[in-house]
Amino acid sequence: MNPDIQKERQKATFEVEKLTHILDGGPEKTRRRREIESLVINDSDFKEEDPNFLSRSERYDQAVRKSAQMILKMREYGIADPEEIYCYKSIFRGNFHEAMGLHFVMFLPTLYGLCDPEQSRKWLPLAKSYQAIGTYAQTELGHGTHLRGLETTATFDPATQEFILNSPTVSSIKWWPGGLGKTSNYAIVLAQLYTQGNCHGLHAFIVPIRDMNTHQPLPGIVVGDIGPKFGFNEVDNGFLKLDHVRIPRDNMLMKYAKVDPDGTYVKPPSAKLTYGTMVFIRSMIVGESARAVAKSSTIAIRYSAVRHQSEIRPGEPEPQILEYQTQQYKLFPVLAMAYAFTFVGQYMSQTYHRITGDINQGDFSELPELHALSAGLKAFTTWAANSAIEVCRMSCGGHGYSRSSALPDIYVEFTPTCTYEGENTVMMLQTARYLMKSYRQARAGQLLHGIVSYLNEADHQRVQPQLVAARSTGIDISDLSGLVEVYKLRAAILVELAAKSIQKELQQRKSQEDAWNNSAIDLVRASDAHCHYVVVKLFTDKLGEIDDAPIRSVLSMLARLYALHGIMNNSGDFLLAGLLNGSQVLQISARIKELLSELRPNAVALVDAFNFHDRMLKSVLGRYDGNVYEHMFEWARRSPLNSTEVHESFEKYLKPLRSKL
Amino acid sequence: MNPDIQKERQKATFEVEKLTHILDGGPEKTRRRREIESLVINDSDFKEEDPNFLSRSERYDQAVRKSAQMILKMREYGIADPEEIYCYKSIFRGNFHEAMGLHFVMFLPTLYGLCDPEQSRKWLPLAKSYQAIGTYAQTELGHGTHLRGLETTATFDPATQEFILNSPTVSSIKWWPGGLGKTSNYAIVLAQLYTQGNCHGLHAFIVPIRDMNTHQPLPGIVVGDIGPKFGFNEVDNGFLKLDHVRIPRDNMLMKYAKVDPDGTYVKPPSAKLTYGTMVFIRSMIVGESARAVAKSSTIAIRYSAVRHQSEIRPGEPEPQILEYQTQQYKLFPVLAMAYAFTFVGQYMSQTYHRITGDINQGDFSELPELHALSAGLKAFTTWAANSAIEVCRMSCGGHGYSRSSALPDIYVEFTPTCTYEGENTVMMLQTARYLMKSYRQARAGQLLHGIVSYLNEADHQRVQPQLVAARSTGIDISDLSGLVEVYKLRAAILVELAAKSIQKELQQRKSQEDAWNNSAIDLVRASDAHCHYVVVKLFTDKLGEIDDAPIRSVLSMLARLYALHGIMNNSGDFLLAGLLNGSQVLQISARIKELLSELRPNAVALVDAFNFHDRMLKSVLGRYDGNVYEHMFEWARRSPLNSTEVHESFEKYLKPLRSKL
Repeated sequence: MNPDIQKERQKATFEVEKLTHILDGGPEKTRRRREIESLVINDSDFKEEDPNFLSRSERYDQAVRKSAQMILKMREYGIADPEEIYCYKSIFRGNFHEAMGLHFVMFLPTLYGLCDPEQSRKWLPLAKSYQAIGTYAQTELGHGTHLRGLETTATFDPATQEFILNSPTVSSIKWWPGGLGKTSNYAIVLAQLYTQGNCHGLHAFIVPIRDMNTHQPLPGIVVGDIGPKFGFNEVDNGFLKLDHVRIPRDNMLMKYAKVDPDGTYVKPPSAKLTYGTMVFIRSMIVGESARAVAKSSTIAIRYSAVRHQSEIRPGEPEPQILEYQTQQYKLFPVLAMAYAFTFVGQYMSQTYHRITGDINQGDFSELPELHALSAGLKAFTTWAANSAIEVCRMSCGGHGYSRSSALPDIYVEFTPTCTYEGENTVMMLQTARYLMKSYRQARAGQLLHGIVSYLNEADHQRVQPQLVAARSTGIDISDLSGLVEVYKLRAAILVELAAKSIQKELQQRKSQEDAWNNSAIDLVRASDAHCHYVVVKLFTDKLGEIDDAPIRSVLSMLARLYALHGIMNNSGDFLLAGLLNGSQVLQISARIKELLSELRPNAVALVDAFNFHDRMLKSVLGRYDGNVYEHMFEWARRSPLNSTEVHESFEKYLKPLRSKL
Repeated sequence: MNPDIQKERQKATFEVEKLTHILDGGPEKTRRRREIESLVINDSDFKEEDPNFLSRSERYDQAVRKSAQMILKMREYGIADPEEIYCYKSIFRGNFHEAMGLHFVMFLPTLYGLCDPEQSRKWLPLAKSYQAIGTYAQTELGHGTHLRGLETTATFDPATQEFILNSPTVSSIKWWPGGLGKTSNYAIVLAQLYTQGNCHGLHAFIVPIRDMNTHQPLPGIVVGDIGPKFGFNEVDNGFLKLDHVRIPRDNMLMKYAKVDPDGTYVKPPSAKLTYGTMVFIRSMIVGESARAVAKSSTIAIRYSAVRHQSEIRPGEPEPQILEYQTQQYKLFPVLAMAYAFTFVGQYMSQTYHRITGDINQGDFSELPELHALSAGLKAFTTWAANSAIEVCRMSCGGHGYSRSSALPDIYVEFTPTCTYEGENTVMMLQTARYLMKSYRQARAGQLLHGIVSYLNEADHQRVQPQLVAARSTGIDISDLSGLVEVYKLRAAILVELAAKSIQKELQQRKSQEDAWNNSAIDLVRASDAHCHYVVVKLFTDKLGEIDDAPIRSVLSMLARLYALHGIMNNSGDFLLAGLLNGSQVLQISARIKELLSELRPNAVALVDAFNFHDRMLKSVLGRYDGNVYEHMFEWARRSPLNSTEVHESFEKYLKPLRSKL
């Protein structure tokens, strides 16, 4: 154990293990998580090469081997509960993604959700035995989230009782689905349904794409890998071009919508049915944001405790870089964010499960708010986490740029969350739509409930933008509930500003749509402020649940730092609205510095509490034992470029060069 | 040509070619640049594979081949002027780095700068004929910018007239130098010089590391590649461990410092001599920031002009994504930044050359200001560019994540500039040191000249922080010179706040060093504000040099957008100081929206003016002809994972899996 990091651990003012229990959701959950993790850690079958040392094809090969292995192991160990599967996969995957992820996340659930009983009997056994390995093909080369823009067609031919699937243009080629390029032999294809000369919009079809025995692409199918990406090297994101491919009528998933043998189209009973899954996935991503930030801050803070550099006082030995105020100012707000997002993730998951219960009993009343919140929080947390990972990487200096730090891998594997499952700006605008609707309802005298209740007229009267008066708002910034209050008022004001921008555009005789687009900057800001308020509020609420005094004390410092740092980064909003005055902002700036010093002794303990096994972090810089340099040297020597002392390019190019000059 | 992008070009209100001349520095420079570029573009010897399709070893191999080829070609074409070499290399390299870069950038210049006449006669011919291929080995595994912390020793042994080079610890292993791992047979090693029992600090030594014929590492040398990184796959950044390696006395570079045969150490006459190179390299990096942002915005804006997505008005066809206000708000400020940094880069380069002239005549007076400015601007522009590249990538949605967009490559090759040649936070603090010194001088009644003259007492009186009064400052924000003025006042105030923070710490009996560290957040903010002011000022100054009215008009919109967007993102500073009042901030917000609309018709023309050849951009999304989708499909099909229809992993893992279940 590196003596510096040992000393850090001795300085902790709280019991790390107890905080780990809180993060896991109880001591029993921590125990079971570790039990599952140890199945992977102690399994000698799971030797693998660092993917960074492999070619793309070798990486894909290793990933397929691991996926196949994992399927067998989970059966062997009887891991079947979704939470336990998630836990097992997390340690199994490390920082990378699974080759066969889409089969589990989209193909199987879609079959479960959209097959009629007969179809279930046919397809589920094939999928569960991996005779059929599948993916979900929605996005096209020229089309993303806007479903009506998709061009792939499925035209019913009553003469043969078949659908003809076709990609009419280059831009209609299916593009991006994970596992489509090489792994899958089936795809659920989303296509515009045509029957009896009419288009009935997007529907899902099971399309065989490769021969089940030879795995060769079937006639009319052009399928392949879309090529190298920023990350996701383990995943064969693919393309699929369909040239009048015929499939039987009953390959259309018919639980809700149907096409009868004569071509008659039967509408689905309700459009709300796929709503829930989307909300669930976005809520999950909030948890992924927390995880990515927790990992990154663990690496950067542990490394900052063992790295010595430069000098504060001349003549003294180089200090740990964690002593520098600028380093603390980079990393401690990120640490606070990791805790904030973890608790928000817990809240989203609990709320989702509670509301799902209501929905199953026919009560949809809370769904719109959760839908709006999950969209906005998905965007808010992924954007923030995306930047935070890079702050952590760059805070490690040059060594953060080495793949041995794991930070480049964490970044490239995480950053797509800003785009997939709803592009973030589009997500923010979805939340804004809900906020605008709520605002109008409140203005019309309706009483709002839930998180948006701050838009109610009565509250609202108090918070007209004051345009920077040098007055005190009477809000106590040393008190967490006071901070929640200013965030709430800021959200209310920015919602109001966005609404007024739309009104102004309408008064200038713009159409509703143009008014919306011309106010989009304000709408995104309003959503952002709303989400920021929710995060600060949920973090603060969580403190009330914690009995252990030393832990509550250190978490309360983190909550304050999170809230105050957010105010400093957006101080214009608070000043503009007269929510804070200038001397309060200066006080906040001073208070942040104090909090950095107060958190300093607990920094390593606070990342230890996330309890990431070295096997999961896969970071030389983030090692629990702090023995960074020896292992960096050892890692480098294993690099493939060192397999020979002299690279062949010397004889091929460098030696001949001399004679040519 | 894609019709959308053609239409965009027809909308331009200015002559693109004339703006290109301004960016190049005159029509003659544009002509010569294109001439040099065409040497590469039309040379059939330069066929190469997209590095993204290659393994690490293949990438390195291709890079060495290209470097060797380039050396021969430049001799053939008689390209010898530094500016022309830079231009040739830029198009030759595309978005990647050279394998042999350090030989040209550090090894040769150090030999030129530090060899005494006899050493020059020996080493320069070897280096210029590539018998000796070299690198510059300074940083160590455990040590970065802090030179006194470096551990490698060079101990003089008078008995044999040799230096003994040694790496006493793991942390002293030389780490990171480009070309050290595989390419170089010589390294200039920086080591602590010991003679007659005394340490004389860091000196440079020429150390042979590989046999000149076999390229095998020499006895006592452990050398290799440090392993995969975020980017820089073409470069063999290396490690070097020296085990009591003996080199002749005259392998110490002796132009200034010397060790006599009896071991007597002779001090160098002045310490300022290496100062200039550092300033030069940092100034160059400002230009690199401009280039990276110009490339990224070219790609993102062209793609946004051909990509159609979602809807603004229901029922109408999907609009170009450049019609969305949120997309304009992401990309146009980045476009403005590209222009701003280009002009700042031009200024830095001109100033460096002017001051170098003075220095050669013994006048060092302007060097400290340029040194401080180059440090701060290096940090300011690289941080901003780093974020801007990612904004561009994410604005392209999913396709930005594909390596075919080139944006991931631009990012990973650029981001090290935030760390190398001086870690950015350290750079900001260097500038802050100069600002604090200037502030104290002004307070002591000294009259400051140059860029910091705004700290003079007379000016200063006017700008005491007002802590948010709802007063008007009388500054006209519709006028560019008014905007320069508020940026200047903001810088003055933040310098003052940082100075006061230090004073306060000192009053609390902190040491000078602790007071500095405890004020570091404020010091970085002060430097940032200073640099921001300089950028806004230089952009505005540049407008005065432009005669062409349509071009001046559109550049003036960009300058305004750059300045106003910066105010919005830091509005707290301006409000807090009473430099702007609330209604002015709201006006600015509205004015930004107007500028987005006003710039919209010229967006594509403004990126066209950067005049990047497709060959240099290497981006499917950024193609000049806008034919994105066809070429994306074609690129994907060339991906190595598509070399066979069925990947071997199917037979190895997926088929056997079925039988095991």
